[in-house]
Amino acid sequence: MVAVRACVLRQGRLVVDDTDDPRPETGQMLVRILACGICGSDLHFVRHGETMVSMTDAMLPSMGTQGMGMAPIDLSRDIVMGHEFCAEVLELGPDTTGPDPGARVVSVPVLLSSTGLHQLAYNNAYPGGYAQYMVLSAPLALEVPNGLDSRQAALTEPLAVGIHGVARSGATEGDSAVVVGCGPVGLAVIAALRAIGVESIVAADLSPRRRAMALTMGAIEAVDPIEEGVVDAWRRVDGRRPLVAFEAVGVPGMLQQLLAELPPGTRVAVVGVCMEPDRILPFFAIAKELSLHFALAYGVDEFAGALRALAEGEIDASPMITGTVDLDGVPGAFEALAHPDEHVKILVEPAAT
Amino acid sequence: MVAVRACVLRQGRLVVDDTDDPRPETGQMLVRILACGICGSDLHFVRHGETMVSMTDAMLPSMGTQGMGMAPIDLSRDIVMGHEFCAEVLELGPDTTGPDPGARVVSVPVLLSSTGLHQLAYNNAYPGGYAQYMVLSAPLALEVPNGLDSRQAALTEPLAVGIHGVARSGATEGDSAVVVGCGPVGLAVIAALRAIGVESIVAADLSPRRRAMALTMGAIEAVDPIEEGVVDAWRRVDGRRPLVAFEAVGVPGMLQQLLAELPPGTRVAVVGVCMEPDRILPFFAIAKELSLHFALAYGVDEFAGALRALAEGEIDASPMITGTVDLDGVPGAFEALAHPDEHVKILVEPAAT
Repeated sequence: MVAVRACVLRQGRLVVDDTDDPRPETGQMLVRILACGICGSDLHFVRHGETMVSMTDAMLPSMGTQGMGMAPIDLSRDIVMGHEFCAEVLELGPDTTGPDPGARVVSVPVLLSSTGLHQLAYNNAYPGGYAQYMVLSAPLALEVPNGLDSRQAALTEPLAVGIHGVARSGATEGDSAVVVGCGPVGLAVIAALRAIGVESIVAADLSPRRRAMALTMGAIEAVDPIEEGVVDAWRRVDGRRPLVAFEAVGVPGMLQQLLAELPPGTRVAVVGVCMEPDRILPFFAIAKELSLHFALAYGVDEFAGALRALAEGEIDASPMITGTVDLDGVPGAFEALAHPDEHVKILVEPAAT
Repeated sequence: MVAVRACVLRQGRLVVDDTDDPRPETGQMLVRILACGICGSDLHFVRHGETMVSMTDAMLPSMGTQGMGMAPIDLSRDIVMGHEFCAEVLELGPDTTGPDPGARVVSVPVLLSSTGLHQLAYNNAYPGGYAQYMVLSAPLALEVPNGLDSRQAALTEPLAVGIHGVARSGATEGDSAVVVGCGPVGLAVIAALRAIGVESIVAADLSPRRRAMALTMGAIEAVDPIEEGVVDAWRRVDGRRPLVAFEAVGVPGMLQQLLAELPPGTRVAVVGVCMEPDRILPFFAIAKELSLHFALAYGVDEFAGALRALAEGEIDASPMITGTVDLDGVPGAFEALAHPDEHVKILVEPAAT
C-alpha cells in the first residue's frame, strides 16, 4: 500500500498531503486522474462549508430516495473534493468487468459500493479527483470517444450542468435567451443553447474577460449590467422571440432583478447556486406570471450527451479552460478563481505533480 | 341623469355615496348588479393601496402589451371596486348588439371603449360592481345559462382563478395535491382540482371553519399547520402519487416553508398574492429542483369554463358563500372578512339597497 498525493480540505484549509491508497471493490476500478476541473461549488464549500452542510442536513428528511448517497459530512475530518474529472483506468476490482486498463473515462460523481450509493467528493469516505488516484464505479464510467483530449473530456460535467439547465428552462429552437452571469455555468448554458438552435442569446457579466468568453461560446451580445440591463439589451437586439432567462450568478438580489426586468410569461431557469437567503417581491412574479425552474446537476443521459457533444465537435468548450495546475497549485488556483476576471475554468492535472 | 348608489373607496376609506350615472358607449351596455363578491384583493387594496399602486407602476415598463388597460391609479380620487359580478342587462349602447335587456350576464372585468382596453374596478375612470349599475362590454359578456342562480354565477370569477391556478400547476388526473390556505382562492383550487380528477387533496389552514370548508369542497384531509405540516399530512394519507403544491395564502414565509417541506421535483403554483417582500432560501429549491409557477387571474377561456362548470353542476361552489350584504353593509363586510374564521365569501347585493 503506497501513499496517494491529494489536495485535502482539512479544517477549512486546502493542504497537499498523502492520503490512503484507494482499493477498488467488486464493481469498482482504480483510476489515475488526468484532469479535474475546479468547480465554483468547491470554492463555495471551502468558504461556506458549514452553511452547506447544515442546509443539506436540514433538507435530508424531505428528500426521500433522492437524498440517497448524501451522507452527513463531518467538516472536522478530511475531504478530497473534485468532481469534474477525466481519468485513466489502472485496475479493475475483483470479478469486475469494465473498460480495459489504459482506457480513458469520465463518470458522474457517484460511487456504487456494497454499502449503497455514495456521492463522490463532498464526502468524508469517498474522495474526489483532486488526487493522483481515485476509485470509480465501472458501470457508471463512460469511455472517452473519438480521441477527445482529456482536458476537454474533463469539461463533460460542467457542460452537462448547462445542458440540464437548458432542459429545465424548456428552451427550444427559435427561442431567445438572456443569461445573467458568465462563469462556467453561464458559459455552459450558452454553449448548450447554441447546440439546440437558440441563436439569439444575450449575456451579462461584470467581467470584461467573461463577456468576451460569452461571445466566443455563442452569445450575440454581452453587456456590463452596470451600463445596460440584460433585458434592455435583449430588447435592443431582439425583443421579439419568446424569451427564456437564466440566473447563473447565485448571489442574493439577482433573482429579484430578473423578476423586475423580465417581460410577462418568461420562464426562468435558476442555475446559479445561491447559498444565502434571498429577498424577492413575489408580486412581480405573480403579475407577470413568471415561472422559476430551479436546477441542479443533471441526469446520466445529459452527462452522456455532454460527452458526445464534445467528442463529436458539436460543442467546443475548450476556450473555457484558462489555466492548469498540478496538485501543489490547487490552493493558489482557488485564490485566483476568487477574482472572476482572471480565470474561468482551471484544471488540476495531478499527474504533473 | 340620475345618481347611482355605490360603495366608494375614498381617501382609503369605504363610504356609500351617490356617483355618476354610467352611460354605455357603442359596444357597451348598462347593467344592474345582482351580486358581486368581495375579493381578498379588494381587502389588500384598501389596506395597502399605495404599495399596490407603486409596485404596479414600477412594473409597467416591463409589461409590454400585457400592461394594456392598467392605467395609473390615483388613490386621492374615488374608486369603485368589485370585479366578481353577475348583472342584469338594462340597456345596450348605440348601434350595439348583445344580450337582450333582462338577460343575466357575467364578464371578465375588462372594458373595451373607443379609447382602448381598460381594467374595471381598480381604476378611477371605470367603476366596478359595488354599485347599483355599471357598464360592461357587450362582446365580453357571457349569458348565465341553465338558470344558474345569480349568487353562484357571481362565483365564476373566483372559480376561474382556481381553474387557472390548477392549469399553471400542470396537475393532471391521478396527481395528488397539497393546498396551503383555504380562503376563496385555495377553495377554488380544491374545487378545480377535483373537477379534473385529482382525488388526493390535502389542505391546510389555521381556521377550523375554512378547514371544514376545504373538506366540503373536495379535500380528503385538512390540517391545522400548527399541529401538522401539510406535507407530513400528505405523506400520512398518500405520499405516493406525484405531488403538486399550491401556495394560496400570500403572506411572507409561506413559500419558504413549502420549499423546506416539499419532496424533490414538486411543481408549486403560487396563487396567493403576496404584496410584501418575501425571504427564501434558494438552495432548498435548487437542491430539490422545484418549479414555481406564479399565477394571476385567468384567460377568457378559463372564465367561460368556470361559468360552464357551475351551470352544469360539475362544481358546486355555493358553500363558499357565507354571507350577503347590501351596499350599506359593504364596509362592515370588509371588517368581517379580516377575521378568516367568520367568513369565506361575502356577496354584495346592491339591488337590496
